Amino acid sequence: MKLYSYFRSSASYRVRIALNVKGLPYEYVPIHLVREGGEQLKPAYRQVNPDAIVPTFVDDEAHTIQQSLAIIEYLEETHPEPPLLPKSPADRAHVRSLALQVACEIHPLNNLRVLKYLKHSVRVDDATKDAWYRHWIESGFATLEQRLAGDARTGKLSYGDTPTIADLCLVPQVYNANRFKIDTTRYPTIQRINDYALTLDAFARAEPGVQPDSE
Amino acid sequence: MKLYSYFRSSASYRVRIALNVKGLPYEYVPIHLVREGGEQLKPAYRQVNPDAIVPTFVDDEAHTIQQSLAIIEYLEETHPEPPLLPKSPADRAHVRSLALQVACEIHPLNNLRVLKYLKHSVRVDDATKDAWYRHWIESGFATLEQRLAGDARTGKLSYGDTPTIADLCLVPQVYNANRFKIDTTRYPTIQRINDYALTLDAFARAEPGVQPDSE
Repeated sequence: MKLYSYFRSSASYRVRIALNVKGLPYEYVPIHLVREGGEQLKPAYRQVNPDAIVPTFVDDEAHTIQQSLAIIEYLEETHPEPPLLPKSPADRAHVRSLALQVACEIHPLNNLRVLKYLKHSVRVDDATKDAWYRHWIESGFATLEQRLAGDARTGKLSYGDTPTIADLCLVPQVYNANRFKIDTTRYPTIQRINDYALTLDAFARAEPGVQPDSE
Repeated sequence: MKLYSYFRSSASYRVRIALNVKGLPYEYVPIHLVREGGEQLKPAYRQVNPDAIVPTFVDDEAHTIQQSLAIIEYLEETHPEPPLLPKSPADRAHVRSLALQVACEIHPLNNLRVLKYLKHSVRVDDATKDAWYRHWIESGFATLEQRLAGDARTGKLSYGDTPTIADLCLVPQVYNANRFKIDTTRYPTIQRINDYALTLDAFARAEPGVQPDSE
């Protein structure tokens, strides 16, 4: 197994946690998103991932998978233990919905290429770009906090006390929020879940600061 | 079953197709995203969906599910026939990856609330807003076209000849592209799949123009 990753990419971070939870060893292939204008834009990587984003997952050279959540569902189907989704369809929907709220409503707006487009094509100043970044994290976290705080299924983690795909999306998004010095104490449930998750080995070993390409 | 929907919402459109493919009757509850500043922002709807977006799906009053892809996976698990995902994990990952490329890389950037934020907070002019909209569809479609055209699994539809979640995301995104008069002839595989899908009853009955709240 091979994972094309960038230490700071939060979508890559999600998959790193999943691989660790499942106890699957993998080869880490660093793709530097900034150096030399971005290694992801070079033809060699575009052959692997035409969308020129990380992560890309390769299983046994036979299957190349793009999109972090598609990779994670694949790992869940091919290596079911320990599970990253609950058993009942209603609870699975709940967990997927929490994950997708980060993956579809927050993260896509703060992607590197979106920030680049804002800067170079919309030509906004840095203050406007920062306000944009904060806005989508803060509005998304406010809703996520409300949903997590108001649901009896929330435990030490987003669903009960063991990791699910909801946590795999939440923790990297909190990492992004912290990088941008967003005050996460306003989201006590999110912060509590994040803090607990990072005490777990699978999450700690996936943190950006301990990756081979970390700077 | 109940679906909170807006005729033009492409995320709602995805779920309408899924319900039709599965042959499931449902109550259509219209939420007007524009009238009176947006019905989705009113407290009554925020109780149903704190994120104030459509769709929301309610199964038997017991389970409320947000996020279109979480709803569709739930329908797939609770009503497996006819399937919206292939059987093998590798092919499921391929189909999910195509769906997520639309749902995570294109659609979130062109959401109504993003366009509103661009206009009112970033204060861009209409030409810049339109260029933004086009940019994300065009760059996303270019990749999607390349992936679909270059894959032997592509048939009359995104994967073979029967509907999958990839088509459920593709067709509503083409509808958005057409609304914005984007030249989709540059994406012949996408256009061919879209045109064929719309000949199928499940897709035709989900089209925005034939919904109860259509204008």
